[in-house]
Amino acid sequence: MYLHGRNVLKEILNLKYTLKIKRVIFTDQKNTDTGLMKLRKMTEERYRVDILSPQELYNLSREKKHQGVVIELREFPFFDYREIIEDNKDKKNSLIIFLDQVQDPHNFGAIIRSSVACGADGIIITERASSDVSPAVIKVSSGLAFRIKISKIPNLRNVLKKFQESDYWIYAAGMEGKNYFDESMPERSVFIFGNEGQGVRRLIKESSDEIISIPMRREVDSLNVAASAAVLLFEYSRQMYKKS
Amino acid sequence: MYLHGRNVLKEILNLKYTLKIKRVIFTDQKNTDTGLMKLRKMTEERYRVDILSPQELYNLSREKKHQGVVIELREFPFFDYREIIEDNKDKKNSLIIFLDQVQDPHNFGAIIRSSVACGADGIIITERASSDVSPAVIKVSSGLAFRIKISKIPNLRNVLKKFQESDYWIYAAGMEGKNYFDESMPERSVFIFGNEGQGVRRLIKESSDEIISIPMRREVDSLNVAASAAVLLFEYSRQMYKKS
Repeated sequence: MYLHGRNVLKEILNLKYTLKIKRVIFTDQKNTDTGLMKLRKMTEERYRVDILSPQELYNLSREKKHQGVVIELREFPFFDYREIIEDNKDKKNSLIIFLDQVQDPHNFGAIIRSSVACGADGIIITERASSDVSPAVIKVSSGLAFRIKISKIPNLRNVLKKFQESDYWIYAAGMEGKNYFDESMPERSVFIFGNEGQGVRRLIKESSDEIISIPMRREVDSLNVAASAAVLLFEYSRQMYKKS
Repeated sequence: MYLHGRNVLKEILNLKYTLKIKRVIFTDQKNTDTGLMKLRKMTEERYRVDILSPQELYNLSREKKHQGVVIELREFPFFDYREIIEDNKDKKNSLIIFLDQVQDPHNFGAIIRSSVACGADGIIITERASSDVSPAVIKVSSGLAFRIKISKIPNLRNVLKKFQESDYWIYAAGMEGKNYFDESMPERSVFIFGNEGQGVRRLIKESSDEIISIPMRREVDSLNVAASAAVLLFEYSRQMYKKS
């Protein structure tokens, strides 16, 4: 896949691990700014660099605003969900996000960004009917998709059970749930968000420990899923801060 | 401007006031569902209805997913900011959102949706360098753009002053500000959000009473502006709920 943009490249260069990057392609335009030259120098130390024309960069990325940088990535590095459980099994506070078929890349990217911002430990998505971690999603996440372990799984219910066994409390977001204003959230919490059309699926809700809702004015059906996620994830952060 | 979609039309039909609608155009496709037929009947009671082919609906709206409904609106109904002040001058709790040059229609639409959901009393945007209330914005807002008074003004600072004089506390969102976890918000509050690139402009910040920030992990520059707005607006709602 082809990624683009300077922020995404900066994120990649800041990672502690090495991505499966085939090459990073810079523009051959003369008189580019020193920022880009610096970035190219840093990139050359770790990855193969090619130089092509702006038009060729556009042809690869299909994106006009490539900012002189296109990154050819072999594949997005998904993690095994068991690794996420293992990483966090002894932590007092741990926050995990499950996405039940969130399909809109803009929402998915924004949820990744909020998750990283509030220090979440992992994101679990379904293999089927979910937005993949596409170039558009990585762009909207400002490259932060590489900063959090994302796992893609076939069966959400089975994996939910594993998190329950690892002492997580499982919240599913849903209008019929308990008002989060009155909720005291456990230190180890999972939040499940569903897609815009149908929300979290019934069977997934039934596998959860509790349904939680954001109170809103009667005439509003629901919040945008990325807004809901931001509200509940930062409420979790706020409560942990108040406890500490 | 041409709007489309059944949810947007339903929102319009539920309004207590009459919009400047030239006509509502329905598809002439046979065997449409009863939901659409019902909607057409309700529309005919208040607005002019035309019937055209699905292709013609597409030609007008430039949108494939028009759902058999296109609405021709003369203009979006903006309000005078003085009306917003007047409406709320005797209310104990009042929440107003200022947007300082928010340009992305997706973000603007999501902010409208969150604002209506948490019961805000108005949104003020700048005439210049802001996303207008376009068909795309109205779509992302799920038609809720008609549910809140939106005012478009040339000079943010002058109008901020008027809200200050009407006993509002003015918060500007900014990374350098006070952690909102520690903030006790006044019943009458204004929140200003800036655009993704530069945030709230310096002069606007200087005209505010306080800068407020969402604490986040070091490697994250900022949240998406729609996510930030959702977090702070619902925190205001939560605090009002706890006080009541």
